[in-house]
Amino acid sequence: MALNLRDTIMQALVIDHGIRLDNDHPLPKRQAGEVLIQTTLAGICATDLALLQGYAHFQGVPGHEFVGVVQQADDPSLIGQRVVGEINAPCGTCPTCHRGDGNHCPKRTALGIRGRNGTFADYFTLPRANLHLVPKGVSDQAAVFTEPLAAALEILEQHPIQSGDSVAVVGDGRLGILIAQVLALTGCQLTVIGRHPEKWHLLKKKAIPVTLAHQLPAAFSARVVVECSGRVEGFVQARKWVQPRGYLIVKSTYTQQPPVDLTALVVDEVTLVGSRCGPFSKALALLEQGLIEVEPLIEREFSLDEGVLAFQMAQEKGRLKVLLRPRRF
Amino acid sequence: MALNLRDTIMQALVIDHGIRLDNDHPLPKRQAGEVLIQTTLAGICATDLALLQGYAHFQGVPGHEFVGVVQQADDPSLIGQRVVGEINAPCGTCPTCHRGDGNHCPKRTALGIRGRNGTFADYFTLPRANLHLVPKGVSDQAAVFTEPLAAALEILEQHPIQSGDSVAVVGDGRLGILIAQVLALTGCQLTVIGRHPEKWHLLKKKAIPVTLAHQLPAAFSARVVVECSGRVEGFVQARKWVQPRGYLIVKSTYTQQPPVDLTALVVDEVTLVGSRCGPFSKALALLEQGLIEVEPLIEREFSLDEGVLAFQMAQEKGRLKVLLRPRRF
Repeated sequence: MALNLRDTIMQALVIDHGIRLDNDHPLPKRQAGEVLIQTTLAGICATDLALLQGYAHFQGVPGHEFVGVVQQADDPSLIGQRVVGEINAPCGTCPTCHRGDGNHCPKRTALGIRGRNGTFADYFTLPRANLHLVPKGVSDQAAVFTEPLAAALEILEQHPIQSGDSVAVVGDGRLGILIAQVLALTGCQLTVIGRHPEKWHLLKKKAIPVTLAHQLPAAFSARVVVECSGRVEGFVQARKWVQPRGYLIVKSTYTQQPPVDLTALVVDEVTLVGSRCGPFSKALALLEQGLIEVEPLIEREFSLDEGVLAFQMAQEKGRLKVLLRPRRF
Repeated sequence: MALNLRDTIMQALVIDHGIRLDNDHPLPKRQAGEVLIQTTLAGICATDLALLQGYAHFQGVPGHEFVGVVQQADDPSLIGQRVVGEINAPCGTCPTCHRGDGNHCPKRTALGIRGRNGTFADYFTLPRANLHLVPKGVSDQAAVFTEPLAAALEILEQHPIQSGDSVAVVGDGRLGILIAQVLALTGCQLTVIGRHPEKWHLLKKKAIPVTLAHQLPAAFSARVVVECSGRVEGFVQARKWVQPRGYLIVKSTYTQQPPVDLTALVVDEVTLVGSRCGPFSKALALLEQGLIEVEPLIEREFSLDEGVLAFQMAQEKGRLKVLLRPRRF
């Protein structure tokens, strides 16, 4: 089943003071324990846009959302398999790894974010341990959302949300709409607070209440507020809406740091939960069961050689998920 | 059993641009549902010192730690009873109160902190619902620590800590030593990080490990870190010592706000827990069973008419608990 790798170079998008297409990028070399994956589809995420602004001082091939096909592996049964994969590659030997928390290994590399080239290329490598096979019933267009859907599911790993709980999601972007769908499955009393009514089609179809901030009742509050707007003003509003003894779950990273009044947090006994990567297997199970709709979140698909244009579109306000698909030879 | 109230005035400490003794302060009038309490002993807390610096813009009689004797009540069986009491008096009718969270009622008064005169006086009033009877075996000198001990216990109400968990307490003041004793009962792997070896006698007697920050191993970290130093530098260190996916429990209020890097909190998936008042009944049970030692935490007892002097001592670095005792007529 293995495709032939035609030669030693490939097409890739590269960040080094801006972003550019490189048609002569060296083909990555697989280390022992790693697989070489051919990219089928890759998604542009807010983190990729932040990398372009200098976040994490990343230089190289960005991209961490993908679905692809294994081309080279120690275990030949993997070759030809359709896979998605977790993004953190831990060292496996430090105290953090020994605690079973490799996702936070201080020496980890992270696919297309830290010390490891990413998925906006014909090929990339990843440890075999990071892979998850994509079930047959899940399309490539759905599977490419596994990573952000897993990040949405991480909220429930960190804090139980139950039927009847009052919950607000601040942000109606791609991640916000995934989070809203995930939380709606709990039967909680959910309100999404957004700024882009043109993006609300899927929420409305699923009967998830969504509103502009200024249309909320003056005394609006919720026991759990999820901030995924990525904006300082979004965080400030989210904090205001958390009930005393409530939970503010922060999914965004910020280029400008929002202010946090620690004394008020103590007086109100608010818990602030930093939340990042989540469980891939659960995300794939939800996709397989059709419980989460992701395909309406696709803005447009570009070929990889239109990647610079694709980044331009992804940076425009109010855009949904922009996908990249390498050309096949 | 009721003592005669000799007249309409009493002795009280008053905050109004500084602190002063008032020998002609009006005796408080009990409302229906409230009791009038004669102060036996009252403790000066860091919050009282902050009020003096302008915190919460409080004017009136400060003080919220006390043990006293009921003098007037709707229920005559209460008269003569030795009591401690919770400090928040909720409105009882707002949505927060209906959720059963009166401690966070936005219209609440708080004894000696917000809209209600406090315990640094011969007499004060409190809702009957706030009272807890002091068990016979608990001395006045122990009972006066019920409120701060309850605040220490709140940590376990908010976050489970188990045998073997790595836990650090940053701060070796009065609250830090109470918290350390409470957490030590869980069997956790505890380290107290302090700055005042002269206060470590009780910790050492109880075999609770305590150290200066610069004597910690360079890679020191803990799953749960409790910050109760009240200092910006203490918070910054506490944050540094929390393991990824760990918990930073903040017990202090701050006059100068420490910096919080939200993006780092998200990347490390750290949970920041604001923590305040706690369960009085559990605090009294621990005192009754002799599981927590509080009397070694007493620095000195002053009579109420030496109250200004007592505040001066309480403000000095490294002092333990300063108590006030109204004179009996």
